[in-house]
Parts: sequence; structure tokens; C-alpha cells
Amino acid sequence: MAIKVYGSMISTATLRVLLCLAEKDLDYELIFIDLATGEHKSPHMLSNNPFGQIPAFEDGDIKLIESRAIMQYIVRKYADKGTELMSSDPKKMAEQSVWMEVESQKFEPATTKLIWELCMKRFLFGKKGDDAVVAELLPALGRLLDVYEARLSESKYLGGDGFSLADLYHVPVIKFLTEAETKMKKLFHARPHVSAWVTDVLSRPACLKVFCKHAYCKGG
Amino acid sequence: MAIKVYGSMISTATLRVLLCLAEKDLDYELIFIDLATGEHKSPHMLSNNPFGQIPAFEDGDIKLIESRAIMQYIVRKYADKGTELMSSDPKKMAEQSVWMEVESQKFEPATTKLIWELCMKRFLFGKKGDDAVVAELLPALGRLLDVYEARLSESKYLGGDGFSLADLYHVPVIKFLTEAETKMKKLFHARPHVSAWVTDVLSRPACLKVFCKHAYCKGG
Repeated sequence: MAIKVYGSMISTATLRVLLCLAEKDLDYELIFIDLATGEHKSPHMLSNNPFGQIPAFEDGDIKLIESRAIMQYIVRKYADKGTELMSSDPKKMAEQSVWMEVESQKFEPATTKLIWELCMKRFLFGKKGDDAVVAELLPALGRLLDVYEARLSESKYLGGDGFSLADLYHVPVIKFLTEAETKMKKLFHARPHVSAWVTDVLSRPACLKVFCKHAYCKGG
Repeated sequence: MAIKVYGSMISTATLRVLLCLAEKDLDYELIFIDLATGEHKSPHMLSNNPFGQIPAFEDGDIKLIESRAIMQYIVRKYADKGTELMSSDPKKMAEQSVWMEVESQKFEPATTKLIWELCMKRFLFGKKGDDAVVAELLPALGRLLDVYEARLSESKYLGGDGFSLADLYHVPVIKFLTEAETKMKKLFHARPHVSAWVTDVLSRPACLKVFCKHAYCKGG
């Protein structure tokens, strides 16, 4: 049975899962859920995801939610395919885990409102974000990126020398934030090691494949 | 070399790590970091944790931050000791991962401000929390616990039949929220399966050991 992902290309969590499937060279079916009409809160989707969120994921009889958990499942289940993404060496895995958690606990909270203002308002309602809210949020993200700059001056990728889930977790948010707004782009590219990392992760074949495959700007 | 944890017993993140060490029957040294004086932002601690937070963790030459990453490291490194906490079966591990992520993405954000109002203000400054803020936060936590109730009516623990990191991640916050305030206690215990789960996880020997060993209420 094919892998099914219920989601939308304007959902960073959905994109996270699709990028992981692409890194693993796995085929999948994307079933479009329309956030604009609240389809993610429909009885059908609530039976897939009791939190009324996307994505929901199916692989045969396995049904999962939470993008990061889905990605870890994919990496473990299809260990012999595509990019490794999680090391089997406990010490290396520990480093990767730290930066997976940093994304989850620091980067995601620092960028959620920015994604809403700068991307989701435009995608869903064709509206411009609130400049004042954005300006208020930028300094904290800047301070966070200073820690990333220090980390990436020591190792090419967040989790060490190799590209891993620690990097991949960040990609959809970085993609959205660095393409739409000049100020945001400057925030990332003002830091040389962060800048090189952003350019690197966004130019990976899996990333190009996912973003070319689906016309996310059109809400599809 | 002994395992070292730099942290404080009033930090839920520190407690998470200590509970994991106790579940694994591992000895450790707790080096007290005084949040009240801002010691976690000192140059020494910033060299251990660039985010200026606790805990920081050392096991020989391994230095880690982020409580959940530390716990995963402990579970992998000391797989043959104490409670299993992460399954080696990919399907079971996938279920556990989902609820580890639910804690991280849903439970933690829903309870962070409550912990601040109900516990940290008291621990750090001897002050009472803001009742209005607490009242505003309770309905969202109630709705979240409804999903937990449904889950725990299907399986004894969040990640399946066995106690795992998915449960353990929640324990310090539950401990703080259910012992201090009657309203909070009611919120958990009004749901029979959540109530049984709370009673179960708080009465585990590791939990009793950690909370008896260190007098966290006295800021030690």
C-alpha cells in the first residue's frame, strides 16, 4: 500500500514530512486538506488527527500524527533507503537529538508567529502581515541565530558533519521566511555560516523536488 | 567518571533528566544552579549551555543540552539498565514518538505559563500566581486533556501498554500542577483515565526517589 500524507503545501509540518520522504526516495500520495475551509477540523480529519491539525500519515496499517514523529518513523523504517538522516552511532545521534530538540523548543516557537504574519496570512487570506508584530519578533530570532552561527562555525551541519533530521526539521520554515521578505532574508544571510547552511539545505535535490512538485503558493 | 547534571529541582527540565536517570538506576551528581540569582546566565553556564538554560549534562566526554535529547541519549546509552523507556520495535517506537512529540508540541506550550504562575513565582519570589491568567489558560488545557483521556482509554500509557519516555516527559509538570492547586488537580482528576495515569506515574519508585532525594520546595 502506498504511503499517504493528508496535508497541505502551505503547512510547514506537512512539508517537513514530504521532504523526509523525498530524502528517502519514497513515493507517496498527498491528499490535499484545505486549511482555508477548515477541512482539518472536519469529522473525517479529526478521526485521523484528534488535535485537528495536519499532517496525518498512513503507511499500510500504521497511522501517525506529529510531523517530527512521522519523520523519525520514516527514517527508522526505511533505514536502507536514501539519506541516512539519523546516525546509528550513539554519540553522533546524541548531537543530532540536541539540535532536533533545539528546533522544536527554540526555533519553532521563535518563528511560528512570523510564519503566520509573513506567509499564512498571505497564503490563506491574501493579506499582508503586520509589520509591527514582525519587527517585535525579529530581535529574539536574531539572538537565536547567533547561537546557530556559533554552532555552524564548528560543524557544517547542526547535528555534525552530515546532513540529518536536525537540519531537515528547519527547512520548510527557512524556505518560507527567506523567500518572501527581504528583512527576514537579511537576518539569516547576515551570518556567514548560517547563510552558507541555508543555501546548502535549500538546494538539496529533495528540497527542489518537493517545492517544484507541488505549487504551494497557489494553495495546492 | 560520574554523570553530572547542572540544574535545579525547581526546573521541570532538570527534573525530567533526573527522573530518567532514576528509571535507569544510574548514579549522578546534581550541581545546583541558582535560577533566583541568574546563575544559568553566568559565563560558566553559558559555556555549558549557549541558550543560558538548565539543565546541562555531562557523561565523560559527552556534553549535552536539551532535556529530551539528554533523556534519549541516556536511554540509548544505557539500554541494558533499568526501565526500557524506548521500544526497539519500530511500530511501538512510532507510537511512543508520537506522544513524545505531543508532549513537546502541545502539553509543554499549554502548561508553561501555568507552571510560571502557579509554581515558579512561588518558588523564586514567594509570590502567588495571577488567578486571571490561570483561569484563562485552563480551558485550553482541559481540551487537550480530553484528547489524553480518549488516548488513555485505549492504552494504559500514552505510548502503548508500557511506561515510556512519552509518559516520563510529562511527569515533572504534572507533579507541580497537581500538588499545588486544587483547581488544577481537579482538571486532571475529573477525567478517570487521565486520573489513573497521573496516580500511576507519580507513584513510580523513580519518581518517589527523585522527589524525596532533593528538597525542591526549599529551592535546593
